[in-house]
Amino acid sequence: MTYQFDEAVFKARLNQDAEFVNRAMDTLLPIDQGPESRLMEAVRYAALMGGKRVRPYLTLHTAALFNVDVKRALRVASAVEMVHCYSLVHDDLPAMDDDDLRRGQPTCHIKFDEATAILAGDALLTRAFEVLSEEGTHQDATIRIDLVKELSKASGAFGMVGGQMLDLVAHEHELDMSEVARLQRMKTGGLINFACVSGAILGKASESALNKLHSYAHDVGLAFQIADDLLDATGDAEQVGKRTGKDAAQGKATFVSLMGVEQAREQAALLRDQAIDQLDIFGDKADPLRDMAHFVVNRVS
Amino acid sequence: MTYQFDEAVFKARLNQDAEFVNRAMDTLLPIDQGPESRLMEAVRYAALMGGKRVRPYLTLHTAALFNVDVKRALRVASAVEMVHCYSLVHDDLPAMDDDDLRRGQPTCHIKFDEATAILAGDALLTRAFEVLSEEGTHQDATIRIDLVKELSKASGAFGMVGGQMLDLVAHEHELDMSEVARLQRMKTGGLINFACVSGAILGKASESALNKLHSYAHDVGLAFQIADDLLDATGDAEQVGKRTGKDAAQGKATFVSLMGVEQAREQAALLRDQAIDQLDIFGDKADPLRDMAHFVVNRVS
Repeated sequence: MTYQFDEAVFKARLNQDAEFVNRAMDTLLPIDQGPESRLMEAVRYAALMGGKRVRPYLTLHTAALFNVDVKRALRVASAVEMVHCYSLVHDDLPAMDDDDLRRGQPTCHIKFDEATAILAGDALLTRAFEVLSEEGTHQDATIRIDLVKELSKASGAFGMVGGQMLDLVAHEHELDMSEVARLQRMKTGGLINFACVSGAILGKASESALNKLHSYAHDVGLAFQIADDLLDATGDAEQVGKRTGKDAAQGKATFVSLMGVEQAREQAALLRDQAIDQLDIFGDKADPLRDMAHFVVNRVS
Repeated sequence: MTYQFDEAVFKARLNQDAEFVNRAMDTLLPIDQGPESRLMEAVRYAALMGGKRVRPYLTLHTAALFNVDVKRALRVASAVEMVHCYSLVHDDLPAMDDDDLRRGQPTCHIKFDEATAILAGDALLTRAFEVLSEEGTHQDATIRIDLVKELSKASGAFGMVGGQMLDLVAHEHELDMSEVARLQRMKTGGLINFACVSGAILGKASESALNKLHSYAHDVGLAFQIADDLLDATGDAEQVGKRTGKDAAQGKATFVSLMGVEQAREQAALLRDQAIDQLDIFGDKADPLRDMAHFVVNRVS
């Protein structure tokens, strides 16, 4: 195995997969005709307005390790992305992070209004669970219920939502490194972890394969957050597609504020290599996942 | 069968069941210790601050028709109530109905703040699905996934959330009777229907029993909404426990504005009798459900 990261090949695959996911989500989130059609317009705006589709990519390529039917993997990938998009819509609200710009576009509550954005988030979250529960996701009910269980754990009060709460109160508690790491695990790590293990759940993977993917997800998730902090600290808004310099302006403890830019870069690179090492047992098939480990560290937006 | 509504007996049972549900929810929504503990405080405030627990009662007593283990029924009843409570928290937000008072207490965003209330709602919704997915709910995964599927359908964009959107835009479209009825079916009917059929799902009820409970839920749900409109039109805030006279002030079409008070009262009574008729096949065992049909029409808060 002489793996090498080829950025052009990876980007083509990432874009191609994003296109597949967008088509799947387009079907799973139908236009509505009633007087309440504004809701599904907002849902579709929030879910289909772009994005790199990193989490769906992780689901698709962990599922591919176990030869899972792509149609099934796309449904789960879509559900993961719906949860991600709902969290962005709610986090961007004026009462939360109050962001006007997301992926270079007006955020959902700017494009529509606050009430519609709140409901669009609620609808996306609910639809994610509905999609997982439907037979198209897998004929085996135990697999579907496992997916529901893991997704709800990852995204609830002791996962993503709790992480967002922690982020909101972070300025009241000067977070140290272990607390910043805990915040990351809750707020973004849980869903990235779900994205990786959902492919394994669909593929009825062995315990040891599942553990490797947990470790990979841990490393990639942490590297992703460090890169995000670096982008906020050193990127410019136009390129990144959202406001930058927010963490420093708010005096927020991040990996970068605690380690400094250089050490954060080194740490991210270390995690990338560690993530790649976790994939040895899967052979060449895991190259798309190795690529992603490179990408999350190198990305400029 | 000489059924007669005994209000004292019913109220004692309703209170007793509410106590059981409160205890179950207290366990299912644990206190958190981290710096983000404010989230679970708000979740618990929203979920445990009172309420008649009408939907849980429906789950418990439809489950009892099929001799379902009470521990299981209480988990499902709790999940239904979590979804109901989340919807109240989000609907009360300033961007939506902007209500300060709920069940005679400050609403969640008044007691805490908007960001916390949004997240508390998100957490409650997510936890509802998690509770359904856990093995304690039923050892059979097909039953658990059926519950997830039905709950997500009832509460998503084409159910409860869509109903709330429709309610928000109702003033832009002068709703006629069939549209007001559609609004009710989506906004409140779906969850009441789920409360009734969830007991039947847990009990692996026959198709015909399930259909009877669907019909019962339809009639009770509609009667409940008409009674709600009557309370808003004719009740006083202190007794009802929330602001009244809102519908008329907003010029909103309701069953009462379209039918008038007298005809609305007659319609509710008719639906009560019809609901009770649906229960014939279940014999005396269904008396608690007959009682509820009386109660939703007679209630003063």
